[in-house]
Amino acid sequence: MRINFQRTYAIVPRRQLSSNSGAYNVDLNDKHPQPVGFKTLVGNIGIKDATDDFACVYSTVPCTVSGMFSQNLFAGPSVKVSRLHLAEGHPRAVVVVSKNANVATGEEGLANAIELTGRVGGKLQIDAKDVLVASTGIIGRRYPMEKVRAFIDDLDPESAGCDFAGIARAMMTTDTVSKYVHTRVGNATIVGVAKGVGMIEPNMATMLTFFFTDALVPQPTLDRIFRKVVNATFNCLSIDTDTSTSDSAAIFANGMAGEVPEAEFEARLHEVAIELVKKIARDGEGATKLLEVSVEGARDDAQAKRVAKAVVNSPLVKTAIHGADPNWGRVAMAIGKCEQDTDINPENVRIAFGDSEVYPKQLSVADLDRLSEVMRGEYVRVAIDLGCGKGHATVWGCDLSAEYIRINADYST
Amino acid sequence: MRINFQRTYAIVPRRQLSSNSGAYNVDLNDKHPQPVGFKTLVGNIGIKDATDDFACVYSTVPCTVSGMFSQNLFAGPSVKVSRLHLAEGHPRAVVVVSKNANVATGEEGLANAIELTGRVGGKLQIDAKDVLVASTGIIGRRYPMEKVRAFIDDLDPESAGCDFAGIARAMMTTDTVSKYVHTRVGNATIVGVAKGVGMIEPNMATMLTFFFTDALVPQPTLDRIFRKVVNATFNCLSIDTDTSTSDSAAIFANGMAGEVPEAEFEARLHEVAIELVKKIARDGEGATKLLEVSVEGARDDAQAKRVAKAVVNSPLVKTAIHGADPNWGRVAMAIGKCEQDTDINPENVRIAFGDSEVYPKQLSVADLDRLSEVMRGEYVRVAIDLGCGKGHATVWGCDLSAEYIRINADYST
Repeated sequence: MRINFQRTYAIVPRRQLSSNSGAYNVDLNDKHPQPVGFKTLVGNIGIKDATDDFACVYSTVPCTVSGMFSQNLFAGPSVKVSRLHLAEGHPRAVVVVSKNANVATGEEGLANAIELTGRVGGKLQIDAKDVLVASTGIIGRRYPMEKVRAFIDDLDPESAGCDFAGIARAMMTTDTVSKYVHTRVGNATIVGVAKGVGMIEPNMATMLTFFFTDALVPQPTLDRIFRKVVNATFNCLSIDTDTSTSDSAAIFANGMAGEVPEAEFEARLHEVAIELVKKIARDGEGATKLLEVSVEGARDDAQAKRVAKAVVNSPLVKTAIHGADPNWGRVAMAIGKCEQDTDINPENVRIAFGDSEVYPKQLSVADLDRLSEVMRGEYVRVAIDLGCGKGHATVWGCDLSAEYIRINADYST
Repeated sequence: MRINFQRTYAIVPRRQLSSNSGAYNVDLNDKHPQPVGFKTLVGNIGIKDATDDFACVYSTVPCTVSGMFSQNLFAGPSVKVSRLHLAEGHPRAVVVVSKNANVATGEEGLANAIELTGRVGGKLQIDAKDVLVASTGIIGRRYPMEKVRAFIDDLDPESAGCDFAGIARAMMTTDTVSKYVHTRVGNATIVGVAKGVGMIEPNMATMLTFFFTDALVPQPTLDRIFRKVVNATFNCLSIDTDTSTSDSAAIFANGMAGEVPEAEFEARLHEVAIELVKKIARDGEGATKLLEVSVEGARDDAQAKRVAKAVVNSPLVKTAIHGADPNWGRVAMAIGKCEQDTDINPENVRIAFGDSEVYPKQLSVADLDRLSEVMRGEYVRVAIDLGCGKGHATVWGCDLSAEYIRINADYST
């Protein structure tokens, strides 16, 4: 999974949100704080098995929304419909169908996605174009529309709860853990849910992530902050270099908790996103370790990110990490793959595993053994100083294990 | 291993070669034809074990030479020295040390590489700068120079043979088969040897390939043909996207068999290179299958190669191939990763496994089962038509297996 969100779509809410400013109190002692004014619906359509495969979050009032989607040329109907709705509607709901990606399903797949948003919108008494849609699971198979219609007909919005952990669970495919993070900023709450690299049948990984907050954030500010945060977090995540056709990220802000300091909102949102990214990387297919690669001393941040991505994506680095092997030669090779970056002089480069420099300083065999012991843990950090300038970047990934092969090869169509 | 040779270095021989034109007869019935005027020396320095780790081929007369080397920023002393010698010397010998890459070994490593060429040159009574050097094996460890000196002191050029198969064997690290191909063109012979992706201890793969011919080929022609052939063969090979620090390719033409038709020479050289590329891909670490990806209907050849590389390098495609799974959804995803190629319209794309179209035409379950049976073989071809134009390219790689992980993770430093 290589995430590469590049386009932001946004709309201006029909109603001014400031009327809700500061109007709601939130219990700060709540272990699972909820953003005010958001409701959740979770259930089982019966697409694959009896686990939840339908998740819907909606705001009872209009929202500001910002969204970013997969750049894959084969992006599916869900991504196309969500892009359209962000451009032309006023989204305040998102519906996620899991166990079926609805990708490469032709005109009928597109019609099904539109029908889905219309039916959900009808139940919520909002326009179809006010509903975003995401879908994850097997490719090339159509939704079982009779089941979908029957399920939505039976939906009772009156029964909606505030169960974001349930939303995160319903989005899972073969994720081994659900990904749900929340934090507080001023009087407001930020909740983030995500699903990471999963396979239910031969299929590609899909990354979906949604954020909900009752903070009041004006549209241009939300766009700017969301783009910046996603670029520094989800766009720095790579499980296996493969960009999904279905990647989607969006944030909904309904303003019900009033204004919050902008810098603090950005910092908290960044923290929530980082936590979700780490949960996804650690739960990467077959992964046994979270791999964090930090590059500093680059000519600029773009160079730092390019080098860090080359390292975190190198199969030889990933297998060395899997084997708890402080094999700095492979890290050097991966840096050197950035052939266009001729201002990188190998003689000025420094490589460390955790806090232990391994190049150019050479460790003794005893020190290497100690380092290997540390690398047997669930978190490995590679730190690189390019000795060129002040650019820096951090990216996240995971090790490459035989289990990755088993998951992706041994289940066949 | 991602090969990316971009620079050609060449020299003009000191002597005119035309004096040898047509002067030698070669036995056309010889099962292993040899280019006239080349000698081989093979032996064991004792770097790792008792298998051959020293290979030297030299021409008894001056040659035209063309060479291309790794673009990795951490390219080792062997690559640096060979580049220098191609620029300043008149190479007619190449020496290969296996089981030690002599990479990231500092100033002393560079001095050792220079000393090696000097000592071998001394034995052959040619200048150090007339010797190319290549080295493959563990990174970050210096040559055992006492053993190297003792071995070369004992070398007897009078004992030199014509054993190119032995040269290919002596170049191996953890290659499971040696790579040696020969062909005839007019009265001349072309021999090619290569070593592919191998690991002896935690280390990175290295690709070395050398060609020897007694055809008379003028320097500019040899450069042009070699660059063209390498770009269409070795530069279309990817085992795991990791560019070695040591990749080296060179061709030596000593003219002793006289002139040959240029187009035929290029065609034969291309065939020899293709055979070596296929042998390397099939012997990729942990590989069980040779994967060939052909793209046609591209806007231009560059786009075709970019898309083909995205497919052949996709871990999800490679694992599907490993599982004999005709999972065209992953091929579509990999094509779609070429996000900049917005002229690719998914609706015009066609994907086939072998001769069986799988997208947009949908196969029945029975047909998919039959296709999976075919894919259990050792050769899988993915054919893609982008429906954009007339550009085309073919690239080679291999499947990704749990054995790749074992080889690269479970042996530790």
